[in-house]
Amino acid sequence: MAEFALIQDLVVKNASKIVLLVMDGLGGLPKEPGGKTELEEARTPNMDRLAAEGICGLHEPIGPGITPGSGPSHLALFGYDPIRYEIGRGVLEAVGIDFPLTPQDLAARGNFCTIDAAGNVTDRRAGRIPTELNAKLSARLQAEVKIPGVQVFVSPVKEHRFVLVLRGEGLDPALSETDPQVVGKPPLPVHPLKPEAARTAELVNQFIEQARRILADSHPANMVLLRGFAKYPSLPQMGDIYGLRAAAIAAYPMYRGLAKLVGMTALPAGSTLDDEFSALERGWADYDFFYLHVKKTDSSGEDGNFEQKVHVIEEVDGLIPRLMALKPDVVVITGDHSTPAMLKGHSWHPVPLLLWARTCRPDLAESFGERACTKGSLGRFPAVDIMPLALAHALRLTKFGA
Amino acid sequence: MAEFALIQDLVVKNASKIVLLVMDGLGGLPKEPGGKTELEEARTPNMDRLAAEGICGLHEPIGPGITPGSGPSHLALFGYDPIRYEIGRGVLEAVGIDFPLTPQDLAARGNFCTIDAAGNVTDRRAGRIPTELNAKLSARLQAEVKIPGVQVFVSPVKEHRFVLVLRGEGLDPALSETDPQVVGKPPLPVHPLKPEAARTAELVNQFIEQARRILADSHPANMVLLRGFAKYPSLPQMGDIYGLRAAAIAAYPMYRGLAKLVGMTALPAGSTLDDEFSALERGWADYDFFYLHVKKTDSSGEDGNFEQKVHVIEEVDGLIPRLMALKPDVVVITGDHSTPAMLKGHSWHPVPLLLWARTCRPDLAESFGERACTKGSLGRFPAVDIMPLALAHALRLTKFGA
Repeated sequence: MAEFALIQDLVVKNASKIVLLVMDGLGGLPKEPGGKTELEEARTPNMDRLAAEGICGLHEPIGPGITPGSGPSHLALFGYDPIRYEIGRGVLEAVGIDFPLTPQDLAARGNFCTIDAAGNVTDRRAGRIPTELNAKLSARLQAEVKIPGVQVFVSPVKEHRFVLVLRGEGLDPALSETDPQVVGKPPLPVHPLKPEAARTAELVNQFIEQARRILADSHPANMVLLRGFAKYPSLPQMGDIYGLRAAAIAAYPMYRGLAKLVGMTALPAGSTLDDEFSALERGWADYDFFYLHVKKTDSSGEDGNFEQKVHVIEEVDGLIPRLMALKPDVVVITGDHSTPAMLKGHSWHPVPLLLWARTCRPDLAESFGERACTKGSLGRFPAVDIMPLALAHALRLTKFGA
Repeated sequence: MAEFALIQDLVVKNASKIVLLVMDGLGGLPKEPGGKTELEEARTPNMDRLAAEGICGLHEPIGPGITPGSGPSHLALFGYDPIRYEIGRGVLEAVGIDFPLTPQDLAARGNFCTIDAAGNVTDRRAGRIPTELNAKLSARLQAEVKIPGVQVFVSPVKEHRFVLVLRGEGLDPALSETDPQVVGKPPLPVHPLKPEAARTAELVNQFIEQARRILADSHPANMVLLRGFAKYPSLPQMGDIYGLRAAAIAAYPMYRGLAKLVGMTALPAGSTLDDEFSALERGWADYDFFYLHVKKTDSSGEDGNFEQKVHVIEEVDGLIPRLMALKPDVVVITGDHSTPAMLKGHSWHPVPLLLWARTCRPDLAESFGERACTKGSLGRFPAVDIMPLALAHALRLTKFGA
C-alpha cells in the first residue's frame, strides 16, 4: 500500500459522485492514411460538449508501446500500478466466468486435450469440443476428483477451456505449466518453482492423475493441460485507498470480477447498454463512484468491424443525457486500451480521455476524438493518474503540506 | 543527495545569471465556463513576448491531482523531490516568522488556549487573544521556563499562535501532539512515537508543565497546546548541488525562510513589488541565481478576488522591463501552485510556466496563459524538472557520457 500512502493521507469524503465510463478498446485507427478513427467518425454531440467544457488527453495504460490485456489495463484505470499488481491468468479466467473466488483459492486455466495410447498429446485443444460436452466433463471431474485437504472446483468456460480452482490453506502458485506446447509429447507434470510450493505441486499432480483416469474413455477430451496458476490477489481495496463506496456496472462477468477484486460492489447490470444506464440510475443514491463498462466497442474492434464500432460509440453518446441528468460531479469517459478495427486486436495506441467537472480549467480540445485529445491539457499521461485527477476534481483530496 | 548525483556531476560554472520569478498561486480558473483565467485576462505584453520567444508548459508541483502547500511546492521549484524532502509544520511556522533556526533546533507550532479549574480545555484558541498580548506572554514564557540542557525560545506569530523552539543536542521530533482537538478534555501529554524520542518528550512535557504554572493567572490564555514537532531539515544546499550562488528576494518571511533552508542568501527585499525589483538590481552582480517571490497573486486568489489577482499580474508585467534591462541569461516565470480565485484556495491545477533564454527552441505558445502554455513544448511536466532546464539553458550543464 506504500504507493497509495500519499493519496490515503489526503483523501477526504464528501457527497460528490464520480462516474468512470469505460468504452472497452475505445482508441482506434483510421481505415486509410489520414482518415478518421472510429471515435472521430462517430457523431457524438454529447461527448463533444463534455470534452469542450472539460479537459482532455490520451492515457497510456501500461507504458509507451505496450499493448495491454484487459486485466492490467483495468487495474491502471482504477489507479493500481499494473506491473506491480499483476492478476494471474488463472484468476482472470475464473473471474471471467463469475466464479466466486475466495482469498484461499488457487486458480488455473485448463484445456481439455487429446492424448494417444502412449500418453502423448495429439491435439492440445481436443478438437475444440462443444461447450456442452465441456460442461459435462467438467461436472464429472468436479464430482469424482478427491484430494485430501482441498476442495476442487472445475468450471467450464468455452469449447475446450475450463477453470480449475483448488481451495485450501497455504496453496502456492509458484508452479510450472503442464502444456508441452507441441504435439507428440506427453503432458508435463507440475514442478514447484520454489520449495514452498512443493505441497501444492503434489496436490495439482494428484488432480492431473485422477483426471487422466476419469477421462480415459472420453476421447477426444481424454486429458487436461493446466497453466496460469494464480492465487487470489490481495489487492488494496478502493474503499480503503480512496474512501469511495464504489460500484461496478458491467454486463460481462470478467469486468465485474475485476472490479470486485479491488473492492467494488457489482450491481446487477442486465445485458444491454440501456440496462447498464438503468443500473446506474437505480444505484445512484447508494455509491460515490461508478465504473460503467461498455464491451461492444472492443468486440467490434476485435472483429475488424469499423462501422459497428462507430455505431456502438454513437449509441453510448445517445445515453449521455441520462448520465448527465443524474448531476454527476465528475465524469471520466475513456477506454481501457485501444482496439483499432484495422488491427483486429488490442493495441498500444494511447487512449482518448475526457474529464468533465465544474472545476476543470478549459483547454484547447473542442471535441472528443484522438486528434482533439492531443490538444487537451492532460497531454499523453499514465492511466494510473486518472483516479487522483478524478478525486481532485471532486474536491476529495486535501492539501499536501502547509 | 543520491538523486542529485547526476546533476552535480554535470554542473559547470560560468558567468550566466538565472532568474526564477515566482508569482505565488499563479494558476487560475475562469469565472464562468469557457471564460478566461486570471492570467489570461491580465494584459501582459512583456511576459507575452518572453513566452513567444521562449518555451512554455504547465508544471505539476507534486503530482496529478495533488494540491500543494507552499512548503512542498517551493521545494519542487528548487528541484527537490517534495515527497522525499518534507519540511515539518513547526519548522515552516518558525521560518514564517523569520526565526533564525539552526540545525540543533526542534520547532513546534503552539496555541495559547483556555483551560478551566479542572484542567479541561474550554477554548482551543484562547478567544484569539490580540497579538500584543501573545507577544507579552511569549516573552514571559521564554524568560521564565528553564529546562536543563536545552535553550528555549518562544516567539509570537499572530493572535493565539506562537512558535516553540528547543535548541540542544539529540532532539527528536517523533512526538505526539497535545491538542485534544475537542473542548472539555485536558491537553494531552507528549508521548514519544519511537524510543529514541523519549528524552525529547520528557523535555517538552517539562515545558508544558512550567507553562501551565507560569500562565495560571493569565486567563483566557492560561495554557498551551503544541503540535507539528519538526526538526530543522538538513536539505542539500543549492550551492553544492547546482554550483550556484543563489539569492532569495521575498517580502514575506516564510519564503525567505524556505529559501534559506536550501542554502540561498535572503536579500533585504522591502515590502513592495518595486522594492523587490530594486533588491534584484542591487544584488545583480553578486549572485548567479535569483528567486524572486510575489505573494499577492496568491493572497488575491485566496480572497476570491479575481480582479485583484489580474491587477497584481499586470503590475508584475510592468516590472519585467527592469528585469530584462539587467540582461539575464535565463528567466523562468511561473507560480508555485495554482490558487484560482474561484476556489479561494490552493488547487491541483497545473501551473503555467515560461522559460526564456537565447538557447530556447521556439514553440507554439505565443502568449503567457494557461491555454497558451498547453501549446508549449514543455507540455505538462513535474516541477522538479525546472532547475535542470534552467541550468541547461544557462549552459551550466555539461555533456553526460561520451
